[in-house]
Amino acid sequence: MTRWVLTLSCPDRPGIVAAVAGALADLAGNITESQQYGDADSGLFFMRVEAEADVEREALEEALAGVTEQFDMTWELDVVGRPVRTVVMVSTASHCLHDLAYQQRSGRLPVDVVAVVSNHTALQGIADFYELPFHHVPVTRETKARAEAELLRIVRETDAELVVLARYMQILSDDLCRELAGRVINIHHSFLPSFKGARPYAQAHARGVKLIGATAHYATADLDEGPIIEQDVERVEHDDAVSELQAMGEDVERRVLGRAVRWHAEHRVLVDGRRTVVFR
Amino acid sequence: MTRWVLTLSCPDRPGIVAAVAGALADLAGNITESQQYGDADSGLFFMRVEAEADVEREALEEALAGVTEQFDMTWELDVVGRPVRTVVMVSTASHCLHDLAYQQRSGRLPVDVVAVVSNHTALQGIADFYELPFHHVPVTRETKARAEAELLRIVRETDAELVVLARYMQILSDDLCRELAGRVINIHHSFLPSFKGARPYAQAHARGVKLIGATAHYATADLDEGPIIEQDVERVEHDDAVSELQAMGEDVERRVLGRAVRWHAEHRVLVDGRRTVVFR
Amino acid sequence: MTRWVLTLSCPDRPGIVAAVAGALADLAGNITESQQYGDADSGLFFMRVEAEADVEREALEEALAGVTEQFDMTWELDVVGRPVRTVVMVSTASHCLHDLAYQQRSGRLPVDVVAVVSNHTALQGIADFYELPFHHVPVTRETKARAEAELLRIVRETDAELVVLARYMQILSDDLCRELAGRVINIHHSFLPSFKGARPYAQAHARGVKLIGATAHYATADLDEGPIIEQDVERVEHDDAVSELQAMGEDVERRVLGRAVRWHAEHRVLVDGRRTVVFR
Amino acid sequence: MTRWVLTLSCPDRPGIVAAVAGALADLAGNITESQQYGDADSGLFFMRVEAEADVEREALEEALAGVTEQFDMTWELDVVGRPVRTVVMVSTASHCLHDLAYQQRSGRLPVDVVAVVSNHTALQGIADFYELPFHHVPVTRETKARAEAELLRIVRETDAELVVLARYMQILSDDLCRELAGRVINIHHSFLPSFKGARPYAQAHARGVKLIGATAHYATADLDEGPIIEQDVERVEHDDAVSELQAMGEDVERRVLGRAVRWHAEHRVLVDGRRTVVFR
Repeated sequence: MTRWVLTLSCPDRPGIVAAVAGALADLAGNITESQQYGDADSGLFFMRVEAEADVEREALEEALAGVTEQFDMTWELDVVGRPVRTVVMVSTASHCLHDLAYQQRSGRLPVDVVAVVSNHTALQGIADFYELPFHHVPVTRETKARAEAELLRIVRETDAELVVLARYMQILSDDLCRELAGRVINIHHSFLPSFKGARPYAQAHARGVKLIGATAHYATADLDEGPIIEQDVERVEHDDAVSELQAMGEDVERRVLGRAVRWHAEHRVLVDGRRTVVFR
Repeated sequence: MTRWVLTLSCPDRPGIVAAVAGALADLAGNITESQQYGDADSGLFFMRVEAEADVEREALEEALAGVTEQFDMTWELDVVGRPVRTVVMVSTASHCLHDLAYQQRSGRLPVDVVAVVSNHTALQGIADFYELPFHHVPVTRETKARAEAELLRIVRETDAELVVLARYMQILSDDLCRELAGRVINIHHSFLPSFKGARPYAQAHARGVKLIGATAHYATADLDEGPIIEQDVERVEHDDAVSELQAMGEDVERRVLGRAVRWHAEHRVLVDGRRTVVFR
Repeated sequence: MTRWVLTLSCPDRPGIVAAVAGALADLAGNITESQQYGDADSGLFFMRVEAEADVEREALEEALAGVTEQFDMTWELDVVGRPVRTVVMVSTASHCLHDLAYQQRSGRLPVDVVAVVSNHTALQGIADFYELPFHHVPVTRETKARAEAELLRIVRETDAELVVLARYMQILSDDLCRELAGRVINIHHSFLPSFKGARPYAQAHARGVKLIGATAHYATADLDEGPIIEQDVERVEHDDAVSELQAMGEDVERRVLGRAVRWHAEHRVLVDGRRTVVFR
Repeated sequence: MTRWVLTLSCPDRPGIVAAVAGALADLAGNITESQQYGDADSGLFFMRVEAEADVEREALEEALAGVTEQFDMTWELDVVGRPVRTVVMVSTASHCLHDLAYQQRSGRLPVDVVAVVSNHTALQGIADFYELPFHHVPVTRETKARAEAELLRIVRETDAELVVLARYMQILSDDLCRELAGRVINIHHSFLPSFKGARPYAQAHARGVKLIGATAHYATADLDEGPIIEQDVERVEHDDAVSELQAMGEDVERRVLGRAVRWHAEHRVLVDGRRTVVFR
């Protein structure tokens, strides 16, 4: 018995669930968990199904082919728990890399970090400790195009399915964002209200915010504007210094990024225009 | 077009979703939101479907009859948003009644409070303000059986579907719990660790807990042990007096009870033995 | 024995706590709770003391006079728990007024609502139920100045110490903000990221945010930019409609405003430039 | 200039703050942050002061000697940020050790882990990576007394000030608890309601709890009943398996333990009978 996970989206109309569930039932597949959602605004229907079935991938794909064509579906089929091949990109801040690596090793996160790529060498020690291949790809204004080409080469060579920007302090080019659309997760700090420009924690401190937060989202050409996957906040007090705000910010960043990566790797996140549907 | 909500549970086996979705598709019903869950421990399968269909109740029930029989389903069919006829039972604490009444009036809560029943008269003013029928049913050790009979009479006369114990400080008899099984929601305070006996907030204060919480659950003969619907906590500090703990406790109680009642009234809560499945 | 609360701020230098505590000790005053904070950025020192002493106000003020002059203090002295005379301003949304009135009646909030002022009549019923004087002061572009004059008249006539903008959908003039500086608390919704313009909940929905929040702050001429007193957020899901976001937003608004008003009324909030010091 | 932190408790009576602040003022010490609390139940007064002063420890202690004697104070004086010499005890679960070590290295936690002691060897690799001395002290029923003697020897030899039981799955003897009273912090899972006996996560799952939590407390002879330092919870859903509850439990454990250790190391936690005063 294999446990399959099928995710799909398509224009909403009657009969989708019946068709999918019918195809699974014909193979004696047993649905163990499933969620559906129709977005009245976008007119799209989203579905995630976990089903146990004693069947090979080819047979399953064949059984679903009629349905996916009929309803014009975008779909993905995977085995539950299969580690997703992942490239993690970092600069010098270690908290996110550390947490992802620790969670992978603990078996909490169905990812297989096939490469750590950095424009610095500061985090090589962590990569080594977790036995993750480390690639130093320096970036200057002049070498940026070459660096991105090298990144793409690594992604292809490792057959990576996901790129995580784990506090990678370089902006990806529009071309690269398009090339990897829907496969790049970014994390950044968030505040109420939001702050533009440099030293956001110092600005947040000066303004006396009571909450600091983080947002994980898919990277798009419009960098911090991609579909949001997860957000969370932490409470701060008037006597927390800028350095403490930063420490709390890092803690909430690693937590939010960890959840976003897990949900993505478990095929729980579907993109719905500028939004995401998260079937937790 | 009517928007229907169907909830069901049955022994888990292949084909359930296909059968239900197929029956809906045959009526040109469009599923707008749905969730399923198979509990490997209990061997039961749970499903909640919202579907739009241009169909009368009789036709829909007829279309589903074959499926519900075939799979031996426990099921319920309702129109989305229909107010659930509800009896609220109170003693002297007003916070829960107040919140439920306010939320009903605001259109936030799909309930129709058909009676407020109390063993005291302290809260009659609130019932009057919200124009809710108020019944004073005093309870002493001698009159308990008679009082419960009166309660049952009110439940039947108002055709109530749900009874909410909104800080009703009387223990229901086992017989009454059984009579109303699955239809009575209770709220009580909760602590880490838990405290037995009188004056729990004073005990919690003496023990220096940092969190106080509340639990909403279905009432069973074993009073505080019924299936949990919702829980939440609030943070307290060393300088919060017992009275402040109690105020915070009331705040978290009303919040937790409000959520539990809404989810129940929206047919999002299904009982799975000693647990609940909550399709939020 | 009276329980006094003294709050003060002044330029930071050695000896402040010693001087204040010494003056209290000379009167046999017993400090029961106290907090101090020196802001290295602004160079200001903040202090809040609760002390029991068998002494009249005059004697206490006299005893403190030397100290407050010596250190150039801004200070306030009050009896712990004395209800603060408060004007609540509303338009048509009832959730904040309702909660403040309920909490006052429950004895949870040391305020005495001496007037409810509204540019509409929709909430008169709530004011009547809680026996709060209601003033209808309509506002049009032409009558705005006259309306503000009427508001000021009410504030003065009732000797109000605090004005709470409880979803009052009119912008106060700069003059009025200055006139009432530090005495007006406003509540508004907050998002990560923030949204400008009309229908913020619809924007937040379209953008797929996962958190919605609220901010309570002192009103300044720059309306939503005054010193923040409290913030909180609530988690939302992809299937929450705009109306549900709004309902959750109202819930978090009333919670945040309730806390801000209580802390202000308990003299726990001190303004530190664009920030607040909150001695919880 | 040195930044000092003074913590103290004593029987409550007028004049304490004046005396302490006066002594500091005499040395031209500038108080930058301070909190006081009088517990009416226990009759004890608690104080924590951070003050900048250009003074040696001896001079400061001498200046305070009169005050501490006069008021019969239990007190402690330290330099702000000095790393506290800490022994971490573990068995096989890595999450707490990992987080403490990572936070120490990041400079977030003012501790100096002088020894990792374990009755297993599973976590030696982590200790090595962070360059922490690792001691393998096996424990069987027969060798328990000898193992505790060895532990005490390590504590003394390293001059350790704090022992953290970071999922150390052995119960300390009453004698050892008394020997190290107030210097041992333990972490354990917590539920609403609580569960006795083996496999608590399985019990929590069977009961369908919606929150799982963790409690950090000082270890006393009555193991899980010592004064609570910090608690927190995480929300779980009906479809979270026992293994997921456990993963979430570990995440909340490491977070709660990390905070408790930081607050202890920053001298923010004072014991008040069965409770703690936490000056955050």
